[in-house]
Amino acid sequence: MFDKINEECGIFGIYSKDGADVVEETYLALYALQHRGQQSCGIAVNDDGVITYRKDSGLVPDVFDKNSLKSLGAGKMAIGHVRYATKEDNNAVSAQPLVSRYVKGNIALSYNGNLLNGYELREEFMKKGGIFQTSNDSETIMYTIAQERNKAGSVEEAINNSMKLLKGAYSFVLMSPKKLIAARDPHGFKPLCMGQLNDSYIFASESCALDTIGATLIRELDPGEIAIVDDKGIRYIRDNCGGKSNMCVFEHVYFARPDSVIEGNSVHMARREAGKYLAREHHVDADLVCGVPDSGLDAAMGYAAESGIPYGLAFIKNRYIGRTFIQPTQNARERAVKIKLNSLSSTVKGKRIVLVDDSIVRGTTVAQIIKLLRDAGAKEVHIRISSPPFLYPCYFGTDIDSRDKLIANNFTKDEICQQIGADSLGYLSIEALSKIAPNAKCDYCIGCFTGKYPVEVPDELEKDKFKDKITKK
Amino acid sequence: MFDKINEECGIFGIYSKDGADVVEETYLALYALQHRGQQSCGIAVNDDGVITYRKDSGLVPDVFDKNSLKSLGAGKMAIGHVRYATKEDNNAVSAQPLVSRYVKGNIALSYNGNLLNGYELREEFMKKGGIFQTSNDSETIMYTIAQERNKAGSVEEAINNSMKLLKGAYSFVLMSPKKLIAARDPHGFKPLCMGQLNDSYIFASESCALDTIGATLIRELDPGEIAIVDDKGIRYIRDNCGGKSNMCVFEHVYFARPDSVIEGNSVHMARREAGKYLAREHHVDADLVCGVPDSGLDAAMGYAAESGIPYGLAFIKNRYIGRTFIQPTQNARERAVKIKLNSLSSTVKGKRIVLVDDSIVRGTTVAQIIKLLRDAGAKEVHIRISSPPFLYPCYFGTDIDSRDKLIANNFTKDEICQQIGADSLGYLSIEALSKIAPNAKCDYCIGCFTGKYPVEVPDELEKDKFKDKITKK
Amino acid sequence: MFDKINEECGIFGIYSKDGADVVEETYLALYALQHRGQQSCGIAVNDDGVITYRKDSGLVPDVFDKNSLKSLGAGKMAIGHVRYATKEDNNAVSAQPLVSRYVKGNIALSYNGNLLNGYELREEFMKKGGIFQTSNDSETIMYTIAQERNKAGSVEEAINNSMKLLKGAYSFVLMSPKKLIAARDPHGFKPLCMGQLNDSYIFASESCALDTIGATLIRELDPGEIAIVDDKGIRYIRDNCGGKSNMCVFEHVYFARPDSVIEGNSVHMARREAGKYLAREHHVDADLVCGVPDSGLDAAMGYAAESGIPYGLAFIKNRYIGRTFIQPTQNARERAVKIKLNSLSSTVKGKRIVLVDDSIVRGTTVAQIIKLLRDAGAKEVHIRISSPPFLYPCYFGTDIDSRDKLIANNFTKDEICQQIGADSLGYLSIEALSKIAPNAKCDYCIGCFTGKYPVEVPDELEKDKFKDKITKK
Amino acid sequence: MFDKINEECGIFGIYSKDGADVVEETYLALYALQHRGQQSCGIAVNDDGVITYRKDSGLVPDVFDKNSLKSLGAGKMAIGHVRYATKEDNNAVSAQPLVSRYVKGNIALSYNGNLLNGYELREEFMKKGGIFQTSNDSETIMYTIAQERNKAGSVEEAINNSMKLLKGAYSFVLMSPKKLIAARDPHGFKPLCMGQLNDSYIFASESCALDTIGATLIRELDPGEIAIVDDKGIRYIRDNCGGKSNMCVFEHVYFARPDSVIEGNSVHMARREAGKYLAREHHVDADLVCGVPDSGLDAAMGYAAESGIPYGLAFIKNRYIGRTFIQPTQNARERAVKIKLNSLSSTVKGKRIVLVDDSIVRGTTVAQIIKLLRDAGAKEVHIRISSPPFLYPCYFGTDIDSRDKLIANNFTKDEICQQIGADSLGYLSIEALSKIAPNAKCDYCIGCFTGKYPVEVPDELEKDKFKDKITKK
Repeated sequence: MFDKINEECGIFGIYSKDGADVVEETYLALYALQHRGQQSCGIAVNDDGVITYRKDSGLVPDVFDKNSLKSLGAGKMAIGHVRYATKEDNNAVSAQPLVSRYVKGNIALSYNGNLLNGYELREEFMKKGGIFQTSNDSETIMYTIAQERNKAGSVEEAINNSMKLLKGAYSFVLMSPKKLIAARDPHGFKPLCMGQLNDSYIFASESCALDTIGATLIRELDPGEIAIVDDKGIRYIRDNCGGKSNMCVFEHVYFARPDSVIEGNSVHMARREAGKYLAREHHVDADLVCGVPDSGLDAAMGYAAESGIPYGLAFIKNRYIGRTFIQPTQNARERAVKIKLNSLSSTVKGKRIVLVDDSIVRGTTVAQIIKLLRDAGAKEVHIRISSPPFLYPCYFGTDIDSRDKLIANNFTKDEICQQIGADSLGYLSIEALSKIAPNAKCDYCIGCFTGKYPVEVPDELEKDKFKDKITKK
Repeated sequence: MFDKINEECGIFGIYSKDGADVVEETYLALYALQHRGQQSCGIAVNDDGVITYRKDSGLVPDVFDKNSLKSLGAGKMAIGHVRYATKEDNNAVSAQPLVSRYVKGNIALSYNGNLLNGYELREEFMKKGGIFQTSNDSETIMYTIAQERNKAGSVEEAINNSMKLLKGAYSFVLMSPKKLIAARDPHGFKPLCMGQLNDSYIFASESCALDTIGATLIRELDPGEIAIVDDKGIRYIRDNCGGKSNMCVFEHVYFARPDSVIEGNSVHMARREAGKYLAREHHVDADLVCGVPDSGLDAAMGYAAESGIPYGLAFIKNRYIGRTFIQPTQNARERAVKIKLNSLSSTVKGKRIVLVDDSIVRGTTVAQIIKLLRDAGAKEVHIRISSPPFLYPCYFGTDIDSRDKLIANNFTKDEICQQIGADSLGYLSIEALSKIAPNAKCDYCIGCFTGKYPVEVPDELEKDKFKDKITKK
Repeated sequence: MFDKINEECGIFGIYSKDGADVVEETYLALYALQHRGQQSCGIAVNDDGVITYRKDSGLVPDVFDKNSLKSLGAGKMAIGHVRYATKEDNNAVSAQPLVSRYVKGNIALSYNGNLLNGYELREEFMKKGGIFQTSNDSETIMYTIAQERNKAGSVEEAINNSMKLLKGAYSFVLMSPKKLIAARDPHGFKPLCMGQLNDSYIFASESCALDTIGATLIRELDPGEIAIVDDKGIRYIRDNCGGKSNMCVFEHVYFARPDSVIEGNSVHMARREAGKYLAREHHVDADLVCGVPDSGLDAAMGYAAESGIPYGLAFIKNRYIGRTFIQPTQNARERAVKIKLNSLSSTVKGKRIVLVDDSIVRGTTVAQIIKLLRDAGAKEVHIRISSPPFLYPCYFGTDIDSRDKLIANNFTKDEICQQIGADSLGYLSIEALSKIAPNAKCDYCIGCFTGKYPVEVPDELEKDKFKDKITKK
Repeated sequence: MFDKINEECGIFGIYSKDGADVVEETYLALYALQHRGQQSCGIAVNDDGVITYRKDSGLVPDVFDKNSLKSLGAGKMAIGHVRYATKEDNNAVSAQPLVSRYVKGNIALSYNGNLLNGYELREEFMKKGGIFQTSNDSETIMYTIAQERNKAGSVEEAINNSMKLLKGAYSFVLMSPKKLIAARDPHGFKPLCMGQLNDSYIFASESCALDTIGATLIRELDPGEIAIVDDKGIRYIRDNCGGKSNMCVFEHVYFARPDSVIEGNSVHMARREAGKYLAREHHVDADLVCGVPDSGLDAAMGYAAESGIPYGLAFIKNRYIGRTFIQPTQNARERAVKIKLNSLSSTVKGKRIVLVDDSIVRGTTVAQIIKLLRDAGAKEVHIRISSPPFLYPCYFGTDIDSRDKLIANNFTKDEICQQIGADSLGYLSIEALSKIAPNAKCDYCIGCFTGKYPVEVPDELEKDKFKDKITKK
């Protein structure tokens, strides 16, 4: 809706020995993960090696109704996926799970991340006669596993070996004919947790999906860990483990749902903490602290509590404006913001406002938001951002990939203030950022702020290498 | 979604001398009014007496897309409608605006309210040969106006005379071949405001619809007032004016959007005030004040500010669960609540919680919500309701109509506490309720709390008289 | 698809004492009547006075699926409707059955025809305060019956009295709370037959609908006859009977399905007879007789049999081109014909062809059809039309209403031949036309050929009086 | 609809140097090929190596509308596909064209046929690490070509080499980044013709697709021939040519559209010839020759012409009953036939009827059809089948694959007569069958009648080897 960085995917898997309705659980869980991807979604169910699936462009309620859920039948295990996509890649063929037949039967894969060597791996397979029906890394991962399976004694061994070949960020769940397997890359860029509901084992990108279906969080997978569930229970391969987690810090800042626990730390609390440090680093005399709904609300509460300035509501967000909304034709951008957000003049009139948001990317909408406050009578508007300025591209699956469009790269803080009409602007420091999740024992990836990445990154972004596109409409 | 009383409708009308895109403005405004009715919606546009319309079951984005909006064409005026419906009346035929031809050409009507003598008026018309294609009061109103038009010199005179025949609650906008007319019943049960955008005059149930399209609020119509807009400008008939407004107090407590101004008073501020009085009347020692999202959030902020107890978030509401959501099959109600609301254990664990909501109707979901808090580790849960207990039916168009189902009618406060698992329960007093909108100069209808109504009410509810239903699927 | 006159409607009604699935029977019967109208369709079912219905734009399979049929529930009686509409009147609001509440409960009406005094009757009702939600005669008929019901002892008496007020062509079926009633205007312009299936009584525009559901044709209703079915059985009112049928002769020539029996005469046989007389009146030396699919096939067989010239197939019609077909952008008309019809050069090459069709209206496609034959190698093409030339408008519900567009009005036979590229052109004579249905004892309406109508017709066509339209999109 | 053998696919490809609208031409051509497959369809367009496609379950008008056609953009070449599927394989994932990236860029394939060694080839690829996302031979063919491409100098050379590996029936069109290539297996089991429209080259399963878009038939591809079109024009590889065509004779008997020319012979004429020989081989004294619509009509005309018995219409087929038709619940099969076919009692009453159809497979509907004639008053019903009895399975892509269900395998002619209620039954002899297409210089595959196939066939049918299915819903 606004000027945001977006996560690429949410994944889910469930294995039930005791006859749980795995399709229904997956369907409900995908609702809980919907914030991680709204472009497409899918569910695959495995009935003793026979896989039935449905996936399409659209939100969960667009793709699934009673009849389509029923048509999937039943089985011991199911996996699901929600996908975000940039405008350039609005491609029905990329919906997941990816389902295919390999040498040992049918497999299905739901994946979140971005491979750094995906292009090279594809080239290699194609030189041996391989064909690729999507431009999705999931197909590359599946090919790698299929190839390794011919040399390995089991699918989990093949996955273990594949993890030595795959470079980059990935968390995935995979169904083989008899097993549900979850894996997280050795750097742990992407979250993946496991839970239990009666006799069912569950894997999900975020713990809020476990809460939603009433499951209990067991723990998060370690970086490099593989978990295998079958009728004999659960077991782990930790051959690729050992490295410290380089979880993307933006999961705490913006991506994850506030009620999730990531790296042992409540996301909501991390955001309040960010607000607290922001208040310490960028104090200002003001009458009211407000957040931009919904992404700035948690940090705004933290800022208010720390600063002692009252917390209040500055905007009402229209909850009915969705993806199908038709943009107004006149004064497009300004109106578009007004339709989605309405300011509460009763709250802001005559006030000096601290307005908190999680980030500024291109800076395209914040000016309109500030104008809404001014029109409603705000005397001063001080912008506080609960993360450092974006300066570098992300190579790991979020949709910021070019430095040109990042406002912080092109203008000074004062210039930005002037452009957007703010009285002041304060970003959270990198130092403070490192403290917002005190329970987490990880070495966050903060490459988009520092340009220093936990792994060597290529000169060129992967996606620019695929010039001759295939698009399904 | 939850256990709520619901408003029946939102209405909108626009007249533009200067070529505004009246269809687009109506479409955008209906998004702002969508909270008043999610069952059906419609738009009618008047191009010099030729009326084109579209209406159907569904939300605004379900019923209108680019093509269907375009197919409506253009015109000087348009009216729109959103409709709530009880389960018993999920009837496509009741969608509005109602469009028909009467003796002087085509007319269209969008209406919000409930007639007390609708059945009697229908009987009368039918005895003269009339036929009714809906069970909607809008058709009765249109018949009344059509009949009066034959005796009157103008449509506005016919409306003025009709208002002497129509008993009950009604706000409506009507397009005749050349005029846009808005009217509010002499008791002013339902809100209706007017605004201006360049040369366009606008009428809407709530001011948030004006804000959304960038229009300025002029004022609210007085009870009994008729406003007529045509090419000569705006004029008023105030023949039925004089009575004090008996606006439904529940507009302030729950129905209206917080950013609207009703009877001169900010709805958000009224709810904060309700929270403030609630804190004074029902203090309790506690660690955290939370609201049930979204209906209790404003009052919770007021409670927190007044009591000095910190305000916090106890729940995350899933924003993607909509009307098409498929109910889980197991342990239905409990799961349904969990899927929509997830508690934040990081916030509530070990805490004594004050949980604020706007009302309890049947008490069917509050127990599950309290259970969510207990499961998340809350030590105590104190329920505070920002309105008095419902004890009597509403005759004016909200969907509470039977005393049997009202929990407050059947159990004492202690019994309710026990049933829902609360440590304590406090309702706002009727006295305090009268103070929450200090700017309002009206004599609110509070009949659902007191049993005393501003007008004589029938022994029996209107809807029970229509036994042989017509239903469109 | 081609240049044709079209019928406006097909109607159906069923009353079952013994628990037949009246909704399913109506649904199946509407498929059999679909050729009479493809714009919209609907079904209404009456469960002891409670009426549930569904109607919408589209073909039967577009409007009804398993779920929507099921949602209609069950009942003792149901009526259905299919509707043709001219481009100018593609209006969702005109779908039938029309359902409404009148003084004695709920009624529903399916109607086929055209009133000559509809406008006058509407004016009269509106002067008494009536409102009209459609521009459909069905609403006028229902108003008339509702008005008469207040003065009569029963609904059938009200219908009997209404028939003295209604001028023009109409066949209808009507459900009152307890009765299913069918009626045909005193001139019998439109067909209506009755049948029986076990204990069910059935009425339908054409007997093919009876065959389809396995019912037996009892007889056709007489002009002016009313049939009433209720739990006591069937009875008739014949107060308006006595006149000779003025059935539209075009039912035999083109409108009806060949397997129907109309006025006691097989439609297929009538068309073969027309071909026979055509062969006698317009003999030509030729090698092959072909029909334009599908409307000319029956008459072509008759022509071939009578002339002794072999019958053959000249064209294959694409059965998958339906209403949703997208017109090609280049050389539109020519291509459009080619896509729908392909000539069989193996049959026509080097041959002198007699090409039979039922009529020429504007002459817009016949030239392309002849060109297809020439391109396929036909040496000569002789056009034979199994009806006389159209010279006058129809006032009774078919969609030819202006003399300007009729090619026969504007050009001589020779000019037409030249325009369309035919070697010769022959029309059936009016005299021969009167003999094509020898079993029929009726005085066909042939006003479109002669300008002499069975009743006095207005100066102006009804539809031109409604200038300020209401359109539902 | 009835008891028929079905063809599996129709294919189409176009290459235009001069800017023809290749998407529109493909769309129109698919309508002409729709009879070859109604389950799914698709179009892929190649814009200088960038391929955009759309494919889905449904008829052409279900899958494509104006917007979706437009979204495909433009390009120099496009291919299309329509697909038939057995009930067991109603699988959205099998829609074609198949589009993928291989070592030299993007390719797309539309295919008609059945591989005999598909399973073995897949096993081989999987053992090298290959994955299969469909159970479709098109993926196997693409893999084979991709593999061969790594060893060959061009895609056409890779195809030429692949043809030595692929066993069975296949005709396909393929787009590489720069070329449109069409190929037909060395036995020529499946038809494939080429045509020209201005500067465009076109390939299609049947010539009726060429006629539809106004293209001229150049010739049919020879068995084993490869045609390559690019900016330099057209050229051929005939390395695998030389064998005589073993075209499936059922293309002439039933599969192809009557207006197509297959192996140089008009399909309509072949069917008339079949009728002629049938009349000679199985004469009977009768009053009328009729065909079962539409499959028996052509042969019935031939029978009538040869025997001198008059040709007539016995049935009207409902043209609106499509795939979405809901089966009636009572006496299902009998009613289902009645709804689709209605007998013309005016024609058949009291007559001795020769009823011609193209084939009897399981014999499930012919009994109902005969009953319709008897109920309509037919005195005698003599069944004549314009092909020999089915006795053996087909291995080449039609959907008869088990001998158990073939009525001719299980009963004598007399037993069948008794079962279906016929007075006599006559099949066309194998000898006569060989004469129905006198212009054809081919050695038809008639294995389903004789059990002798042009190539060695496996013991087991391919499809039985895939037990663990993948199904997309």
